[in-house]
Amino acid sequence: MGAAKSKRVPRAVRERQMMDAAVRTFARRGYRAASMDEIAELAGVSKPLVYLYLNSKEELFSAVIRREAAALVTAVTAAVEKDAAADRQLWCGLTGFFAHTAEHPEGWAVLHQQARTHGEPFAIEVAAMRAEIVRFVAGLIGAAAKEAGCAGELADREVAGLAHALVGAAESLAEWANTCAADGTSTLGVIGERERPTAKDAAGTLMNFAWAGLGRLMHGERWTPA
Amino acid sequence: MGAAKSKRVPRAVRERQMMDAAVRTFARRGYRAASMDEIAELAGVSKPLVYLYLNSKEELFSAVIRREAAALVTAVTAAVEKDAAADRQLWCGLTGFFAHTAEHPEGWAVLHQQARTHGEPFAIEVAAMRAEIVRFVAGLIGAAAKEAGCAGELADREVAGLAHALVGAAESLAEWANTCAADGTSTLGVIGERERPTAKDAAGTLMNFAWAGLGRLMHGERWTPA
Repeated sequence: MGAAKSKRVPRAVRERQMMDAAVRTFARRGYRAASMDEIAELAGVSKPLVYLYLNSKEELFSAVIRREAAALVTAVTAAVEKDAAADRQLWCGLTGFFAHTAEHPEGWAVLHQQARTHGEPFAIEVAAMRAEIVRFVAGLIGAAAKEAGCAGELADREVAGLAHALVGAAESLAEWANTCAADGTSTLGVIGERERPTAKDAAGTLMNFAWAGLGRLMHGERWTPA
Repeated sequence: MGAAKSKRVPRAVRERQMMDAAVRTFARRGYRAASMDEIAELAGVSKPLVYLYLNSKEELFSAVIRREAAALVTAVTAAVEKDAAADRQLWCGLTGFFAHTAEHPEGWAVLHQQARTHGEPFAIEVAAMRAEIVRFVAGLIGAAAKEAGCAGELADREVAGLAHALVGAAESLAEWANTCAADGTSTLGVIGERERPTAKDAAGTLMNFAWAGLGRLMHGERWTPA
């Protein structure tokens, strides 16, 4: 238990430190500009050790995407109370999503901004995570339609569209909230608010926007062009 | 008007051909992998001519983003009937958005997938366009709140959040619709529909989802966790 021993950090811990440093560096610099030197320095290890543990920048980026995607899906699904009403499940899932993206803005930036555009292997990881969340949301909308007794009226195709819309709305709100936090101002400019919305604010905005609309839709009240 | 003369293509036409080729190449290959050789070949001109007209790959990409962003904003704003009711304006704007992104899937891919991640100058162009659309949508939501006599109740901050949510929902639906078209199948997999939703389908889905919810919100009916 001397000084020499206390320096021996377990491999799993070292890997986590490297991944943490990689998330930060990829989020700030982008994938191409991020250097293994910077990642190693930020992690407090030598560059050869990063290569020894994680092979290449490509594999490190893939590992980061997988870890951050899994953490996000876990946060969303863990927030949901199984067997609750569909609207309650959605509310909890959204709150979990906004809380996680607020606590891990760099992980969210890697998934939302970086991972989608650097070629097939990376984009596929993120698309798979997104598809999982869309399926989950589509399931909740379908369940809510069934509860409301209108399963037949809301076609599968429309449920899929609504789920994509809701997920896109949540992504956009999360990005906006994180931008508010980073800038101390909104990307809207005109509004000039200085504080970021809380996870519950964001989830509440989206529930008010979407769920009330879905509720009407499920009771056969459709918006039609005048 | 002989053969020699008919070969002299005006500079503006040549530039448009090069930009068209660039949009296609950037959308397919991504910014980094796109080569000026491929762009020149697709445009049917020599590579030095591309450099002569558009200077560098960076400037060509910037020019492409500016052109595609301007075209999208023009399509959305041109679709709107000024002085119509706010919901009608939003419906028209959404229909214009979905029609334009369906007709220009490669331009949309460049804006939505490519331009946001390749560093400041490109991301800023797209952010400016997006902010313009968000401001327009926020204006419509604010106007609708005023029409409904509840301008004070819906805080500016919430209007901004709602506008971001709606724009994100529209982006996500447009991407989904274009993926349906490209694959002949949905990214959801489970649904298995083979045809892409039309612009009116997509706008209708979003109006039903959002506007009905906004309508309730404006009449003071809020969703609250049970």
